[in-house]
Amino acid sequence: MLYDFLGVNEKGNLTISGSDAVHLAKKYGTPLYVMSEDYIRGACREFHKSIDKYYGGNGMVLFASKAFSCKEIYRIMMQENCGVDVVSGGELYTALSVGFPTENIVFHGNNKSQDELKMAVDNNVGRVIVDGLSELDMLDAIAEKANKTVSVMLRIKPGIDAHTHEFIKTGQIDSKFGLALETGEALEGVKKALEYKNINLKGIHCHIGSQIFGTEPFESAADVMYTFLAKVKEETGFCIEEINLGGGFGIRYTELDSPVSYDMYMSKVAEVMQRKSKELGIPMPKIYIEPGRAIVGPAGVTLYTVGAIKAIPNIRTYVSIDGGMSDNPRYALYQSDYEACIANKAAKPRKFLATIAGKCCESGDLIQEDTFIQKPKSGDIMAVFSTGAYNYTMASNYNRIPRPATVFVKEGEKSRIVIRRETYEDLVRNDI
Amino acid sequence: MLYDFLGVNEKGNLTISGSDAVHLAKKYGTPLYVMSEDYIRGACREFHKSIDKYYGGNGMVLFASKAFSCKEIYRIMMQENCGVDVVSGGELYTALSVGFPTENIVFHGNNKSQDELKMAVDNNVGRVIVDGLSELDMLDAIAEKANKTVSVMLRIKPGIDAHTHEFIKTGQIDSKFGLALETGEALEGVKKALEYKNINLKGIHCHIGSQIFGTEPFESAADVMYTFLAKVKEETGFCIEEINLGGGFGIRYTELDSPVSYDMYMSKVAEVMQRKSKELGIPMPKIYIEPGRAIVGPAGVTLYTVGAIKAIPNIRTYVSIDGGMSDNPRYALYQSDYEACIANKAAKPRKFLATIAGKCCESGDLIQEDTFIQKPKSGDIMAVFSTGAYNYTMASNYNRIPRPATVFVKEGEKSRIVIRRETYEDLVRNDI
Repeated sequence: MLYDFLGVNEKGNLTISGSDAVHLAKKYGTPLYVMSEDYIRGACREFHKSIDKYYGGNGMVLFASKAFSCKEIYRIMMQENCGVDVVSGGELYTALSVGFPTENIVFHGNNKSQDELKMAVDNNVGRVIVDGLSELDMLDAIAEKANKTVSVMLRIKPGIDAHTHEFIKTGQIDSKFGLALETGEALEGVKKALEYKNINLKGIHCHIGSQIFGTEPFESAADVMYTFLAKVKEETGFCIEEINLGGGFGIRYTELDSPVSYDMYMSKVAEVMQRKSKELGIPMPKIYIEPGRAIVGPAGVTLYTVGAIKAIPNIRTYVSIDGGMSDNPRYALYQSDYEACIANKAAKPRKFLATIAGKCCESGDLIQEDTFIQKPKSGDIMAVFSTGAYNYTMASNYNRIPRPATVFVKEGEKSRIVIRRETYEDLVRNDI
Repeated sequence: MLYDFLGVNEKGNLTISGSDAVHLAKKYGTPLYVMSEDYIRGACREFHKSIDKYYGGNGMVLFASKAFSCKEIYRIMMQENCGVDVVSGGELYTALSVGFPTENIVFHGNNKSQDELKMAVDNNVGRVIVDGLSELDMLDAIAEKANKTVSVMLRIKPGIDAHTHEFIKTGQIDSKFGLALETGEALEGVKKALEYKNINLKGIHCHIGSQIFGTEPFESAADVMYTFLAKVKEETGFCIEEINLGGGFGIRYTELDSPVSYDMYMSKVAEVMQRKSKELGIPMPKIYIEPGRAIVGPAGVTLYTVGAIKAIPNIRTYVSIDGGMSDNPRYALYQSDYEACIANKAAKPRKFLATIAGKCCESGDLIQEDTFIQKPKSGDIMAVFSTGAYNYTMASNYNRIPRPATVFVKEGEKSRIVIRRETYEDLVRNDI
């Protein structure tokens, strides 16, 4: 099993934080997103622990809510003393709707609208992560009108290549995000920010990519950011107090993935920060990290019912499920790897080579090609692992398929719905 | 301009079936899907005309609603005497909700659920396109229980390679769809269908791919299907009365695309059918076609407001818009080509090389790389063309971005909303 909270019970069924997956499928229907609340809370605590250990507690864990956004996740993050990052008015609206403390919200985005920035200012979000020079103008004008001062971080492109899939690589100069160091744009941004009356420059931010397995890219990023911080001090006399290193910590999608522990990331990055601090004579800044996938990704298991099975001699066997790219477009988008099993045969070995196909009317609607599962038959419950991030948030109604429900499970407690299944009525709600 | 219904008015603004795009953006907000009702109705009539001309009217145009599904499109298809194909309970529900005549509905899908088949049978849909052997069993049992006879077509893989993008290629033996000819599975399907008491075999179906520009693949498919029809007659004595050749007719996304006219497709395929009919001594079957993209794709124009513009010296200029992969994931999925212009500068030449970036927090969120538009500035209205198919239907709430409204325009008439814009309240409606 990929994660500790997964198991097999005496019936030979898959369990997720102690809940029988086959029972969940029966109770709530399929497709169904199931998430281990234990895992989510545990991951938050692990990140906090490492901030205590390596930074003396001078830091903040911001859950990147684009990975999984709904009311309940914001409640949990509140309880776990995490902040959140939001990337749109919709995410901010959701966080606000459960009373999330606005000082612990940071607002991201390469193209925030006037309305979104106003919403951020009106609600006193903790930090706006300013993505470009023109945004500084807009934000200052909005803040001035509201008679407020807005605390910001500037998003910097550190120029680090994070050795990951082309489409989820960021941080390099050719990116829609952030201000480039090489061209002097980042320094210009700092100087502009310092001049604006209604802007309070608190920190700098970078994000170097996603699903990164090594610690080196993070160490390099910390190094680059620190060097910039020193340059800012030298050129302007201003001491930037906060560094936000974003997220991108890799998770296990399959047995072949072997990310280092989060503690290891944090300790390696802290080493760089401490060394640079001494070298450059700059006090340690407050550290922010933005794990999203790392907190919720492993926690998710999607349950499907197996339908049509098509064996094409000498080619492959298509095992169709009652969901697909409408609830998980990641294979179609990035050819992402996933592991799967037959939940009602979880104790048996996975020896059957299958291509898991969705029910959408599109050949590219696959969840995984040529992967080993238990021998399936129609009516079986299939579990696909590590679907907690970028599944529900990226889901569509393609083919007018309703989006699944999301259920949270917790060891020793009853399962509970946190997002209701869409109905056919929901699909036509906005049709005239 | 790519299509005749696009123009430029005296203000230098883009017009869509006579409506000023800049005015539409102001009236309804952006992002906004605008669709030319004239184009949609015109395309339906063109297909009908060719069926009259080449098949003596013995055929049916089925709009493939996965390309664009909402209540209003089903009303228009009713008025245009088209049938529709649906691929899910959700699409069927939508069609039924406006009283679409069920005898003109065909039901597709590689993995129809028990509930969906029951819904199809209960509502007396015209044809179920049976995708595999196991579906025949399920369907017969459901029909028997309902004391009904269900008319079906069998989906065949004709083994034609349609020379198109790998992910939208179908028809080959390695596909989740249909019954293979080579392996004898298709013939077995026919024999089984003929044995079932509650199944009435009416026809055979194939679909060889999408966005196909030549007529040859269609001619080959017609040839293969006809040969199979003759084989069925020879082996079983049964004469299949209907052939459904699916869709896949290419449209113009950019000036470089040059699809042949629909009339040409139809005439070329009719030639094959007539020739084979004589050769094999089989009466001409009723022809069904399933254009989806070809009817609605060209009709759509998405309007956005330009936001942040980032010029990266010697690399590229990112022009960010207030939508992105959440309303149009086709570049992220297939690297699809699109043309764009600045709607309020439509009379000026397109000489500015831009990469159009969405507002989603993801580097891969682009609409088009390195394309020529008019020199943009923040606040301009950008129009992206040929977005009528697989944009609204594939849209998501990624980053909790509400889905845009859809507006229909018609020469000489007022614009009207057919799908309302989602609100922030809609986003949290199912959150607990």
